[in-house]
Amino acid sequence: MSCRQCVCVKNIRYLVGVKKMTDCQGDGEGTNSPMEVYEKLTAQGEEVRALKTAKAEKAEIDAAVQLLLKLKVDYKQLTGQDYKAGCPPSETCVAPDNRPSADGANDEDTVDPWNVSTSNAKGVDYDKLIVRFGSSKIDQELVDRIEKVSGQKPHHFLRRGIFFSHRDMHQVLDAYEKHKSFYLYTGRGPSSDSMHVGHLIPFIFTKWLQDVFDIPLVIQLTDDEKYLWKDLTLEECHRYAVENAKDIIACGFDVNKTFIFSDLEYMGASPEFYRNVVKIQKHVTFNQVKGIFGFTDSDCIGKISFPAIQAAPSFSNSFPQIFKGRKDIQCLIPCAIDQDPYFRMTRDVAPRIGHPKPALLHSTFFPALQGAQTKMSASDANSSIFLTDTPKQIKNKVNKHAFSGGKDTVEEHRKYGGNPDVDVAFMYLTFFLEDDEQLEKIRQDYISGALLTGELKKLLIETLQPIISQHREQRKKVTDERVKHFMTPRPLNFNF
Amino acid sequence: MSCRQCVCVKNIRYLVGVKKMTDCQGDGEGTNSPMEVYEKLTAQGEEVRALKTAKAEKAEIDAAVQLLLKLKVDYKQLTGQDYKAGCPPSETCVAPDNRPSADGANDEDTVDPWNVSTSNAKGVDYDKLIVRFGSSKIDQELVDRIEKVSGQKPHHFLRRGIFFSHRDMHQVLDAYEKHKSFYLYTGRGPSSDSMHVGHLIPFIFTKWLQDVFDIPLVIQLTDDEKYLWKDLTLEECHRYAVENAKDIIACGFDVNKTFIFSDLEYMGASPEFYRNVVKIQKHVTFNQVKGIFGFTDSDCIGKISFPAIQAAPSFSNSFPQIFKGRKDIQCLIPCAIDQDPYFRMTRDVAPRIGHPKPALLHSTFFPALQGAQTKMSASDANSSIFLTDTPKQIKNKVNKHAFSGGKDTVEEHRKYGGNPDVDVAFMYLTFFLEDDEQLEKIRQDYISGALLTGELKKLLIETLQPIISQHREQRKKVTDERVKHFMTPRPLNFNF
Repeated sequence: MSCRQCVCVKNIRYLVGVKKMTDCQGDGEGTNSPMEVYEKLTAQGEEVRALKTAKAEKAEIDAAVQLLLKLKVDYKQLTGQDYKAGCPPSETCVAPDNRPSADGANDEDTVDPWNVSTSNAKGVDYDKLIVRFGSSKIDQELVDRIEKVSGQKPHHFLRRGIFFSHRDMHQVLDAYEKHKSFYLYTGRGPSSDSMHVGHLIPFIFTKWLQDVFDIPLVIQLTDDEKYLWKDLTLEECHRYAVENAKDIIACGFDVNKTFIFSDLEYMGASPEFYRNVVKIQKHVTFNQVKGIFGFTDSDCIGKISFPAIQAAPSFSNSFPQIFKGRKDIQCLIPCAIDQDPYFRMTRDVAPRIGHPKPALLHSTFFPALQGAQTKMSASDANSSIFLTDTPKQIKNKVNKHAFSGGKDTVEEHRKYGGNPDVDVAFMYLTFFLEDDEQLEKIRQDYISGALLTGELKKLLIETLQPIISQHREQRKKVTDERVKHFMTPRPLNFNF
Repeated sequence: MSCRQCVCVKNIRYLVGVKKMTDCQGDGEGTNSPMEVYEKLTAQGEEVRALKTAKAEKAEIDAAVQLLLKLKVDYKQLTGQDYKAGCPPSETCVAPDNRPSADGANDEDTVDPWNVSTSNAKGVDYDKLIVRFGSSKIDQELVDRIEKVSGQKPHHFLRRGIFFSHRDMHQVLDAYEKHKSFYLYTGRGPSSDSMHVGHLIPFIFTKWLQDVFDIPLVIQLTDDEKYLWKDLTLEECHRYAVENAKDIIACGFDVNKTFIFSDLEYMGASPEFYRNVVKIQKHVTFNQVKGIFGFTDSDCIGKISFPAIQAAPSFSNSFPQIFKGRKDIQCLIPCAIDQDPYFRMTRDVAPRIGHPKPALLHSTFFPALQGAQTKMSASDANSSIFLTDTPKQIKNKVNKHAFSGGKDTVEEHRKYGGNPDVDVAFMYLTFFLEDDEQLEKIRQDYISGALLTGELKKLLIETLQPIISQHREQRKKVTDERVKHFMTPRPLNFNF
């Protein structure tokens, strides 16, 4: 797992200049995204070459060529472009309607595995991401359905589109209605011991899901990944994993329903986990991870094989102590959209090794204080609010660094009003202020000019201070023993 | 581990047309083989490109370029050829003296990770392999020294050049004389439950080393590798590992000094093993494994990262239960020469992650019954003598399939004599007949024509039958409980 909830995302590629492809929305079995068809085409091309080299039977080669040609037709229909080996769809299909436009909305968006930047102060265009990744929008119908099935008012992250995209969530609910349960899987890449508020988003939401559906949860801490990507020792990464586990536990997870694990520990404690990793590694080629993650020949073999380690917890028999060896329990993964490539790969492999595809709920990125188009940096303490910040630090940071959508002078602001869509204080309130009416009133008052930037910031400060203070109190109570309890492989209170 | 002792070897590449490079023999720190310099050059070229792309400081780029140029000069000196990216040394330096010659000795040798074939009935040219790999020949001086240090008559595999090449063996003996001990590591890739006599070679020799030096031994069964390479299930591979362990135990290893492990089991039982795997995976790039093992972009990511798993047991802290967490215990690896690429990689990584380089003792390949230039095949029961063969099967196979160096008629044979160098029955006797004088007499009699092919084959049959029968008896005695004992991570009887 990389940083799963912030703008310093990884793992999204080829988003520049995405053509509108209305016929490939949705995530049904019969519909594929351009990238999926591209990947299948590439694999089929190799298959044909391999058969020819091996001098296979003519009938076999012919059948493989037929499938290749069919995929090429599909690809052309989907993208309007001819398939070109080595050239993934986004690079080929920059349609005229997607060129830099007058309002700058499409101007120079860059999103790749290790960078996210957009010149649009509103942040990344998430509707385009849905089209691009072939996922489905979380629409009002789905939000209503979650309310109906769970019997609970939907979390404000759902009500406000912070979790905005999904894969197979309807299927999960269909099964749940028929008393077929599922489990949750989320995670974090522990690259330092200081987490910021944005890092809490997936955990806050996952806890809500756990509570309303009453289901087990596994949380992966990818200390091995951080060792592979960063200039850190194994010991440091593992220490960060344990420190981060304390912050996660402080979110209030039920120890009887939650298993937190570090890869460096659990890999050496569960042959079943390693078996799933090897199975996945057998079914994914370098070509595929190159296409999905942008790895190059100079990358270390650890990075190249890592995606299988993030994929494996999607399969229930990676946790025999919880699921008693069953491999058919459905998995639901709440995560930031940047992690989708990992799970697109996982979903591709799943049926081939006899597992259900994991379902997903995707969140937007949490903006940096400096604005939605800049990057949050763990090394820049002023780019976000950290869970260790004092009330005074929170006040200073928000006042000093939070990008404002207000006007330059009070007079102008009163006259023309502010722009909440680019105002970071307002954005943060959408994440942390639960009261919908109050939030809407703030928005209206800010637009009208009745609410000044300083007043808006004050509202945010007053919202964040108690949340962070409370978190700090909860974290203090997390003993080493309690961490050990959460991180010990053991049965959970649940019967399937 | 692939098939570590037979002609169906993997992992040797670029052996075609090796130029004689007398100045790069030996294995000291200051001397590098052409392949090593080639790999360093490739890596350095990438480094320079990366620095330029990242717009690094001029001084830093200049220093990197200087090193690149120095390496190019070294390469030219060593190979007589200019460095060419993507073109490893053997492909560039086919010297005139190495072109197909009148006696056919250099004619169309092909040795790559998945194929060994030579048109020379004597088999692969091992002296060339030594030059190629930059290892050192096991000469009489070293054999004498092993005798002196161990106080035992050298094993006939040493006396007869079956173990013919080494890395750092003098260093191991220097330390041993100063009461600094070492441990042994060997292994097997369990691709079926039937092992043939050739598979016993490294184990027979390793047992001898264990006995004369009184040291611990770890034996890796790479069931994960076999799953990745073969069309087998994980369960099958693991079952083969356990079955093969029985044959290995039947060789007489001391349970108090020997730990046998399956990767699929031990990876999930030892966080320390996984930690070393990840460390190695961080320090090896795809470029490197591509150069060493010939992997391509269509290979699965499991194959690409596997070399780290075979490398890890070379580091003593992969076995904390045996070495009490110490990471500085020297490792000695007896194996067939085809496994050297794995350990060349390991030796390159070792100092960078704070471990001693493993030392090696390399054996020749065990020939197929049909001759040293053909491939032994597990699917062809007639290509070797299996450990399950009955005395009658042994007799029939040797008589029917063992390639003969004798003449076509008894008259001609009596007149001109036979050629033991290409005679498989004689080759097998060099492996299995311990008496040097008797073997020499057989050789002389065969050359002179006094010994007929049928008589030579009878001698082999009479030598092999009791060996195989005894092995079968021993194997019968190996209970499941005993296998479990050998395969349980535990302390061994040894104090460092």
